[in-house]
Amino acid sequence: MKLIRFGLPGAEKPGVVTDAGMFDVSAFGEDYGEKFFETDGLNRLAAWWSANGSNCPQVPADTRLGSAVQRPSKIVCIGLNYADHAKETNAQIPAEPIVFFKSTSSLVGPNDNVIIPRNSEKTDWEVELAVVIGKKASYVDEKDAMDYVAGYCLHNDYSERAFQLERGGQWVKGKSADSFAPLGPWMATKDEIADVDNLRLWLTVNGQKMQDGNTSNFIFKVPFLVHYLSQFMTLLPGDVISTGTPAGVGLGMNPQVYIKPGDVIELGIDGLGTSKQTAVAYK
Amino acid sequence: MKLIRFGLPGAEKPGVVTDAGMFDVSAFGEDYGEKFFETDGLNRLAAWWSANGSNCPQVPADTRLGSAVQRPSKIVCIGLNYADHAKETNAQIPAEPIVFFKSTSSLVGPNDNVIIPRNSEKTDWEVELAVVIGKKASYVDEKDAMDYVAGYCLHNDYSERAFQLERGGQWVKGKSADSFAPLGPWMATKDEIADVDNLRLWLTVNGQKMQDGNTSNFIFKVPFLVHYLSQFMTLLPGDVISTGTPAGVGLGMNPQVYIKPGDVIELGIDGLGTSKQTAVAYK
Repeated sequence: MKLIRFGLPGAEKPGVVTDAGMFDVSAFGEDYGEKFFETDGLNRLAAWWSANGSNCPQVPADTRLGSAVQRPSKIVCIGLNYADHAKETNAQIPAEPIVFFKSTSSLVGPNDNVIIPRNSEKTDWEVELAVVIGKKASYVDEKDAMDYVAGYCLHNDYSERAFQLERGGQWVKGKSADSFAPLGPWMATKDEIADVDNLRLWLTVNGQKMQDGNTSNFIFKVPFLVHYLSQFMTLLPGDVISTGTPAGVGLGMNPQVYIKPGDVIELGIDGLGTSKQTAVAYK
Repeated sequence: MKLIRFGLPGAEKPGVVTDAGMFDVSAFGEDYGEKFFETDGLNRLAAWWSANGSNCPQVPADTRLGSAVQRPSKIVCIGLNYADHAKETNAQIPAEPIVFFKSTSSLVGPNDNVIIPRNSEKTDWEVELAVVIGKKASYVDEKDAMDYVAGYCLHNDYSERAFQLERGGQWVKGKSADSFAPLGPWMATKDEIADVDNLRLWLTVNGQKMQDGNTSNFIFKVPFLVHYLSQFMTLLPGDVISTGTPAGVGLGMNPQVYIKPGDVIELGIDGLGTSKQTAVAYK
């Protein structure tokens, strides 16, 4: 299944997207958050959809989408997980995953504006494959790790490079501004993605191709990441892991290129749809 | 007021503590989370307590306490915010606050066991003053910052130093294990603390004094921290800011000292009570 959330910010309703369009599943009665995933929500929704899908109202194609899942307990990000991106930022290939958090208050819909923070001169893009956790994961073996994955989303891990790298050492400062985590359009359940290690992902700015990578270049693959993270913290149902970005970010260019108000950023991943953000200045 | 949460893990009820003991305010009908703080909960609770407090059942003194506030959207921590602690860890006095996140899944009650993670040899303590945010804070001026503070708690920012410092660069790996954030016993509302810049805070291990500091040695004070953080992210009602630890952590000793199963860690801050954790091995 492909899950969406649609409607006004803060009042999103759950939906499902199929080849026939988007459908309102509010009547199922649950949003896609921690409790939903924790209580076998995906299987319950699939059963409900089989019985009731034909009665669900269609959602107009121009309806605003929210973040594909409800605000999770955490957004865990992996740094430098593509060899080409590590190279462009003059970083060494990490011996083990680099881990940082992004504030969950940065979460927005896939096509919402990206707000350039006050005093920002280095707002940058990062197309990423995000993994949604399906059940509580603590000290998970790598061989079992996929049992803990609910599905996948497209994510743009916006990053203010000066805040991240020039303001005192930890990356979280540059990763957490409002609107810095457009997630979606949808969450595809695990079964929808035949090979998560062979997905093309790309990003354009004003129509110009900036990133064009493939998850086949992951340094650390999804099962290892779930296993690895679960040694350091408990992953909760609905938590999001963003798996890193391929080459082509503004920081890696010569001269460096950053986002200006009016810029249009589009991105996509095979099977996970596309998203589009217009950059605006903070007012 | 002094707010507590009591009862079994995951099923805590709200309470109030006074000189006469602990009282169950479940009848007020709200837990101390984002929605409570967002909707002027402190003032509503105070009014309700004036009218109904005398009818509230007393809570037995040996009842387990939970985290003093419900799981927040984020726990933001400040690194090296006491000059003496920066010195003992051979770190420079930071020019601006060092900021990192702690997983909210690490939150536990003030007297719960601290679980030493699997493969941990360097689990360390950090007594800290935690600030609870009372309303949504984005780009807040320093002079207005105290309007955004709901109150204060005692916090032990447990840290696995090898995970934090020897495993790839970002601190979050060493800060986020289950049980690494005992918060409480209570949240004291802002008005209960006459001078937040002059609170003694201390910590003992097996009765031996390890930390004995005072918030008068803050490098960055609470209003500045709220202002500063709000430039990088939106602080939500109920969010927790842990303001850093004074000298006396195990990492700073020669030779270094870390927690072993059976160790008893006790800590306190003027006006914010005391807490006590017994260390156990992960099973």
